[in-house]
Amino acid sequence: MTELLKGKPVADRITIEIAEKAENLKASGVVPTLAIVRLGKEPGDISYEKGAVKRAAEAGVEVKSLVFDRDMTQEDLIAEIEKLNEEDSVHGVLIFRPLPKHIDEKAVCEVLDPAKDIDGITSGSLAGIFMDSDVGFPPCTAAACIEMLDHYGYDLKGKKVTVMGRSLVIGKPVVMMAMRRNATVTICHSRTTAEDFAAAGSNADIVIAAVGKARMITEDMLGEGQVIIDVGINMDENGKLCGDVDFDRENPDEGIGAHAAAITPVPAGVGSVTTAVLMKHVINAAEKAADRV
Amino acid sequence: MTELLKGKPVADRITIEIAEKAENLKASGVVPTLAIVRLGKEPGDISYEKGAVKRAAEAGVEVKSLVFDRDMTQEDLIAEIEKLNEEDSVHGVLIFRPLPKHIDEKAVCEVLDPAKDIDGITSGSLAGIFMDSDVGFPPCTAAACIEMLDHYGYDLKGKKVTVMGRSLVIGKPVVMMAMRRNATVTICHSRTTAEDFAAAGSNADIVIAAVGKARMITEDMLGEGQVIIDVGINMDENGKLCGDVDFDRENPDEGIGAHAAAITPVPAGVGSVTTAVLMKHVINAAEKAADRV
Repeated sequence: MTELLKGKPVADRITIEIAEKAENLKASGVVPTLAIVRLGKEPGDISYEKGAVKRAAEAGVEVKSLVFDRDMTQEDLIAEIEKLNEEDSVHGVLIFRPLPKHIDEKAVCEVLDPAKDIDGITSGSLAGIFMDSDVGFPPCTAAACIEMLDHYGYDLKGKKVTVMGRSLVIGKPVVMMAMRRNATVTICHSRTTAEDFAAAGSNADIVIAAVGKARMITEDMLGEGQVIIDVGINMDENGKLCGDVDFDRENPDEGIGAHAAAITPVPAGVGSVTTAVLMKHVINAAEKAADRV
Repeated sequence: MTELLKGKPVADRITIEIAEKAENLKASGVVPTLAIVRLGKEPGDISYEKGAVKRAAEAGVEVKSLVFDRDMTQEDLIAEIEKLNEEDSVHGVLIFRPLPKHIDEKAVCEVLDPAKDIDGITSGSLAGIFMDSDVGFPPCTAAACIEMLDHYGYDLKGKKVTVMGRSLVIGKPVVMMAMRRNATVTICHSRTTAEDFAAAGSNADIVIAAVGKARMITEDMLGEGQVIIDVGINMDENGKLCGDVDFDRENPDEGIGAHAAAITPVPAGVGSVTTAVLMKHVINAAEKAADRV
């Protein structure tokens, strides 16, 4: 029977670890602080913010919510981010995206100081990932995949990892992070032939699925005894939340469940770890800032 | 019989193409100019510079050689690079590396304006490669691999490319460039198990070998009908120049030569293309600078 790799124990453990670090920071006069920048009241943003605020409270991170009108100008938004860059009391900045269409998202992201970029949206952070330097932070969801594997004791060294999807938010950074941990990595994507996709999937020790398509990864694309990290959060045709992997949680001994050694469920898998990773990045940013003083 | 993919025709074609562009630039008052920064008289640097100067003359690129003492201070070197950043008449800057040990190479590289970074040494250039943006330029040798494949008509789309080696100068940027061209990419390195290394090598349509070890890639690590790009430039035990791939140029129908569809020789392969790529980057940088005016 496949092992369900749930996110909650991972998030809880990270939270306990960073709460202690937050205490130490506060004892030395630093209150680790996350600024959240939200334009309008998009339901997805509000729901994520709610979870982040709760997690922050558990972790001992102060949250500063900045809510602006959705028709705010790009110039004004950039000015606000520049202010946050300057503010020593703010260690991390989360900007909800996608931004409204009248705003050049890339231009706005680039304004953020990579040292405060706790979700890997600046080129500074992404260069850091690519170059293995300690500038900036990887996107939280990408980091959450690695946290999951670490927590459940799956060492990547010398393992074959297949990453499905090549986005800048998950696929590409996960490739770099897995390589840094000495995995042999294969990257499949929408232009990979069906045959190669299935071969790369079946052949891996660890599969990280981040294609963003409901249940696209089917049994024939996977192998025996694998660890499967499902990053997808999709709605299926019945309006039910599901992953990229065609795993039936109700019947975990059938289909993919009968072959996989372990799999992250959707929901309650990788997605449950992202806010804890976000707070971990804020704490790290606060520690680095304190070291610089 | 395997096809020898020689570098000279590729370099010559690129040179003709860019010489035309250089003419156009000059007609509009812009003289494409490369500044070469060299500390001391390292034989490798001088030999490369000689080749670059010759290629520049053919391509219509002006070269400005800046030669400093090898015991120059880091501060002075940084000041020189800052001057080159400011100088509108200089479009690209090549800094010979490794720099002497008393200089923090990374710190020096970071000073260079990514717009003039025609050999992919700044984090700005590397972020550009990672993010598929048009900031900076990839390292010339990485770009030369792709130029070779393009020139000889090997389309990467949907192909399985195995990259051997994960350096920041070749492996990682080549992975990104191959992925951009819609290849399915596998990256092997020193921590890949022997079995996985051989499987990834044998299984590929195109192999890019950049491990930096003389003749390390042997027949058993490769497959049938492959295109092999050998980036290595090593000395073998007899002091003879050789690649990373154990291909015997004297007996091209034996060993790897009997199985590969095509292979780049060493010398006279990828290495012969790098100075042409360097000049191509200078011309591109000059064009971009002219567009900005």
